Amino acid sequence: MSELRKDPVTGRWVIISTRRRTRPNDFRIERSTGIGGEYCPFCPGREDMTPPEVFAFRHNGAPPNGPGWDLRVVPNKFPALQVEGTLDRQGEGLFDRMSGIGAHEVFIEHPDHNKTVAAMSEPEIERMLWAFRERIIDLKRDRRFRYILVFKNHGAAAGASLEHSHSQLIALPIVPDFVRQELDGARHHFAAKERCVFCDIVRQEITAERRVIQEDADIVAIAPYAPRFPFETWILPRRHGARFEDASRQEYEGLARMLKAVLGWMSRALEDPAYNLVIHSAPASDDASEYYHWHVELMPKLTRTAGFEWGTGFYINPTSPEEAAQVLRNARDAAPRG
Amino acid sequence: MSELRKDPVTGRWVIISTRRRTRPNDFRIERSTGIGGEYCPFCPGREDMTPPEVFAFRHNGAPPNGPGWDLRVVPNKFPALQVEGTLDRQGEGLFDRMSGIGAHEVFIEHPDHNKTVAAMSEPEIERMLWAFRERIIDLKRDRRFRYILVFKNHGAAAGASLEHSHSQLIALPIVPDFVRQELDGARHHFAAKERCVFCDIVRQEITAERRVIQEDADIVAIAPYAPRFPFETWILPRRHGARFEDASRQEYEGLARMLKAVLGWMSRALEDPAYNLVIHSAPASDDASEYYHWHVELMPKLTRTAGFEWGTGFYINPTSPEEAAQVLRNARDAAPRG
Repeated sequence: MSELRKDPVTGRWVIISTRRRTRPNDFRIERSTGIGGEYCPFCPGREDMTPPEVFAFRHNGAPPNGPGWDLRVVPNKFPALQVEGTLDRQGEGLFDRMSGIGAHEVFIEHPDHNKTVAAMSEPEIERMLWAFRERIIDLKRDRRFRYILVFKNHGAAAGASLEHSHSQLIALPIVPDFVRQELDGARHHFAAKERCVFCDIVRQEITAERRVIQEDADIVAIAPYAPRFPFETWILPRRHGARFEDASRQEYEGLARMLKAVLGWMSRALEDPAYNLVIHSAPASDDASEYYHWHVELMPKLTRTAGFEWGTGFYINPTSPEEAAQVLRNARDAAPRG
Repeated sequence: MSELRKDPVTGRWVIISTRRRTRPNDFRIERSTGIGGEYCPFCPGREDMTPPEVFAFRHNGAPPNGPGWDLRVVPNKFPALQVEGTLDRQGEGLFDRMSGIGAHEVFIEHPDHNKTVAAMSEPEIERMLWAFRERIIDLKRDRRFRYILVFKNHGAAAGASLEHSHSQLIALPIVPDFVRQELDGARHHFAAKERCVFCDIVRQEITAERRVIQEDADIVAIAPYAPRFPFETWILPRRHGARFEDASRQEYEGLARMLKAVLGWMSRALEDPAYNLVIHSAPASDDASEYYHWHVELMPKLTRTAGFEWGTGFYINPTSPEEAAQVLRNARDAAPRG
């Protein structure tokens, strides 16, 4: 049984999820390089190795939980949070906790075990985005959930335990700390200026040019001004909108195109790096429509020095965003046109 | 030339320090397992391989920058910030930056290449704490510095690039984000209750017992209620005090004893894990004397899953603090008495 606990000093919520350890006395979950093709529970024909699917794109009327799918969404077999139960909130002196109610789902993005997102076609990536939207909209109906986090870990160094390309969704009864910080900052900016801070950033970056990696009619990819990590990249819609799930078809098309392009350039320039991808979107519970702006943050994991940041919460980045943007633009210009 | 940049949304400052890369086009600073004894620049007899020392404990009147030392403090050869120059603050539309003025020093804790902190004697560890104090007091005189961060990375997985045991100090012209969050939380608690939140935590934990790893007259080691990482441990003085450098001789003695003990139990229970150790102390610039409480945070790096937290800023911890405290108490009780 997992639970959510709040740090009494910083207000940061964490999930304590003891069920995710395979053996009770094994504290060193040094997950190895990933499970290869022979034993992969995400490959077609092994649908019985995952919990029953909650959503899928299937062709030719293939029945659920068998082969014949393009994309499957299943509950995580080792969930950090569980769907069943009531949201029991408790105090214990200074401390606050609540039961670990939530959803934890896995998006198996493609039937092909070896297909990375960078190698998928644009319609395949767009299909993945529609699946995210579908699950977010369904889970938002559950009033226990305050935030729905969609993310992807690629490569063992980024925390991926399975090789087969997949994304994850965690529906939470709280708003995580990093989202709260962004919301607070964006709210203050709006209060002072009556403008969205992300709209301001997009405008200023397009004028300045040097941190722009790629822009098109709907979507802009930039190296942010104060990146925590080398080659950190933000992908934002030009049009203001607080929620990923309210984006337009044209924006999903644009985002799919941009993701494929940027991941391809990163892969070429940085030798297929491990990365984390996180969708930043307004909480289900807040009306942040005026001041928040959904976007995608992409963080290649290039350095072992990450250990330092992980421990101290303090960031030293050896690559300037101007340099990172230049390297990715060079990879773009050297690439054959798609 | 490095610089400090502020994220316009969250207010988080980061250091962009391009000088720390060894080769201009090498973005994959995958530092390997550490430099062994033969080439170690921290070993006695190789004093000319470091910049000239700024502080040392020496015996028998041995002259600086040669052998005959117990502990040496030298400027970092690849500093994230530089001491020379003025603190040039600039705006650029939405963005804020300042020149990368600061100090970056290395504490070579022991002449013996293979001596870890856990293996040092209590007086040796206490000597290290006095050296921290000495350098903090000296650097605080420089009014450009707002915060002095003292930390230690042990093991490659925690970001250590050299094997020979060492700690680091970074003097900063800003207060880092994680300190600011703690200060804000502690200030709010004090405003509401007229009590220090850390004093309250110590009191409640000692009464509850189950998250206490060890306590003695001056110092308490606990597994915090909402830990981000498995076996995260906080070591706090019982007596209220905002700043590490204002602690008493008795508290340094107690902290040295506690550090040796806890690191020993961790080493035994978790097979000499990599770890980050960070001293949390009030900023040089703030009067936080009523509401802040200095302490040490110790974070073993046990899981590869860290990649996830690193990217998302969101924490899932597979080990409860009650369980972690129990495991460390068991290691304590199994250990021969010192």
